[in-house]
Amino acid sequence: MAKIFGHQKPDTDSICSSIAFGYLLNEIYDDSFQVCRLGDINEETKYILDKFGIEKPILIDEIEDGEDVYLIDHNEFPQSVKNIDKANIKMVVDHHRLDNFHTVNPIEIRMKPVGCSSTILFDLFKENNVSIPKKIASLMLSAIISDTMLFKSPTTTEQDQLVASYLMKIADLDVDSYGLEMLKAGTNLSGKNAKELLEIDAKEFTSNSKRFEVAQINTVDIDELLLEFETQLKAEMQNKVDENKLNLFLLMVTDIVNSNSMIVAIGEDISYFNDKFNVQLEDGKVLLRDVVSRKKQIVPFL
Amino acid sequence: MAKIFGHQKPDTDSICSSIAFGYLLNEIYDDSFQVCRLGDINEETKYILDKFGIEKPILIDEIEDGEDVYLIDHNEFPQSVKNIDKANIKMVVDHHRLDNFHTVNPIEIRMKPVGCSSTILFDLFKENNVSIPKKIASLMLSAIISDTMLFKSPTTTEQDQLVASYLMKIADLDVDSYGLEMLKAGTNLSGKNAKELLEIDAKEFTSNSKRFEVAQINTVDIDELLLEFETQLKAEMQNKVDENKLNLFLLMVTDIVNSNSMIVAIGEDISYFNDKFNVQLEDGKVLLRDVVSRKKQIVPFL
Repeated sequence: MAKIFGHQKPDTDSICSSIAFGYLLNEIYDDSFQVCRLGDINEETKYILDKFGIEKPILIDEIEDGEDVYLIDHNEFPQSVKNIDKANIKMVVDHHRLDNFHTVNPIEIRMKPVGCSSTILFDLFKENNVSIPKKIASLMLSAIISDTMLFKSPTTTEQDQLVASYLMKIADLDVDSYGLEMLKAGTNLSGKNAKELLEIDAKEFTSNSKRFEVAQINTVDIDELLLEFETQLKAEMQNKVDENKLNLFLLMVTDIVNSNSMIVAIGEDISYFNDKFNVQLEDGKVLLRDVVSRKKQIVPFL
Repeated sequence: MAKIFGHQKPDTDSICSSIAFGYLLNEIYDDSFQVCRLGDINEETKYILDKFGIEKPILIDEIEDGEDVYLIDHNEFPQSVKNIDKANIKMVVDHHRLDNFHTVNPIEIRMKPVGCSSTILFDLFKENNVSIPKKIASLMLSAIISDTMLFKSPTTTEQDQLVASYLMKIADLDVDSYGLEMLKAGTNLSGKNAKELLEIDAKEFTSNSKRFEVAQINTVDIDELLLEFETQLKAEMQNKVDENKLNLFLLMVTDIVNSNSMIVAIGEDISYFNDKFNVQLEDGKVLLRDVVSRKKQIVPFL
């Protein structure tokens, strides 16, 4: 049974697009595709799955040697299942940079510089003449809202907006009110400690032989969050830097209403960050205005 | 002006699919796409372009820093233009393994494990509602015939055959008689010396930290070709091994009528080859029956 999964520390796109991708593949071929996840779902995703009455994908932490796998919302091996290099990768659907990835044989790859994996899936549904049921449309729309931060992120493309407008009709949802409700559910920290906050949405990268981790926490009040957690967050970030020999750990605390991010940085390469972003961290922090996208506004400059 | 090109030492797919891709992009957007090539065209491609009265693409050997480029029929940097790492890669259309490739930003990638790049282009024409003119259909069909060796190569898929049957109608060509005529034109060695023969269709790979080059020469008579050229070919291969510090240089002399390949091997990793293919080279040669595809029957085992 082939497995479908998004990246480690899954966000809404990784979970919801995996479910939609699984539905599509099972419609095209047969019922032999299993939707999986590589970690706990976040509060936003939990809200979405609960709202539409959908089960969480199956949690896995490794795969069998030579097992058929379909990757969505990621391609880099360090962000994938731990023994991904032993898998038989059948297909990748993604909207991130391509790096730290290779195959032995030719495979199918569908990548597009759009805001969300579900926008690419929409093309695949159309090409394969598979109609999108209401629940699947709701998940795909939720993924687009999440990844584009309700179309405010600079990663948003015309195609994301067009696809969202189609999905909205199938899902019968008001995108603005549902979208804000959904994003706010994601800012529910519900008794999480600093370690857990950092695990909500974190990605590791290797670039110029340096190891980076960039985590993101969405909030409606940056100051309040830092007032409560700053000291513990920095201590946990330092632990991670030491444990994983990171050159730099960046935390984006993102205000989803005003679209700004406070960057908290820990690691030996603080000055590298200052240089690349032409800023000066004070007390390990700096506010970047109109910055909400890790993929478009942080990672390419590292 | 964005540039479109296939791999170094271009074969028919790299040239004909580049021209078709350029036509498509110019139809979708505007007239700012320039079709290029990274080397001399081979006898087969020359025959095709002459037959349909089409100009060769422009020869380039480097690109400007930050220039927009569209890659077709390849993705690996060592097979591309020499300063590809400085380019702004906009899109890749390919049917080979993905390796030695990465991007800084998300880009569009269309890869499919089919026999020819033009089979993937056919999808793109359809999705973008661009109709395929007779000359472009002739080129795309030629590319498919060339890469699949008239559908005899194990790389051939149902989709290649289906697309070829559509293109055949637009091109108004009898695929069997035209195909054989075209492949035979490619076996015309027309006064080439051993060095030139090795450059007809050669690709370099890095795998397990080893450097390989695999060249292919199509013929209708393996024995005759080796009788005339074996000594000089081996000497030239040895030169290449020394110059480029190759671990192994393989030459496939492929009988396009009977679908066999004589492998000629030079380099320190001869025994590695014997192990991987479970054969025993004699006098640096071995005949592999039903082997015609470098991509599917040679490279994955190295």
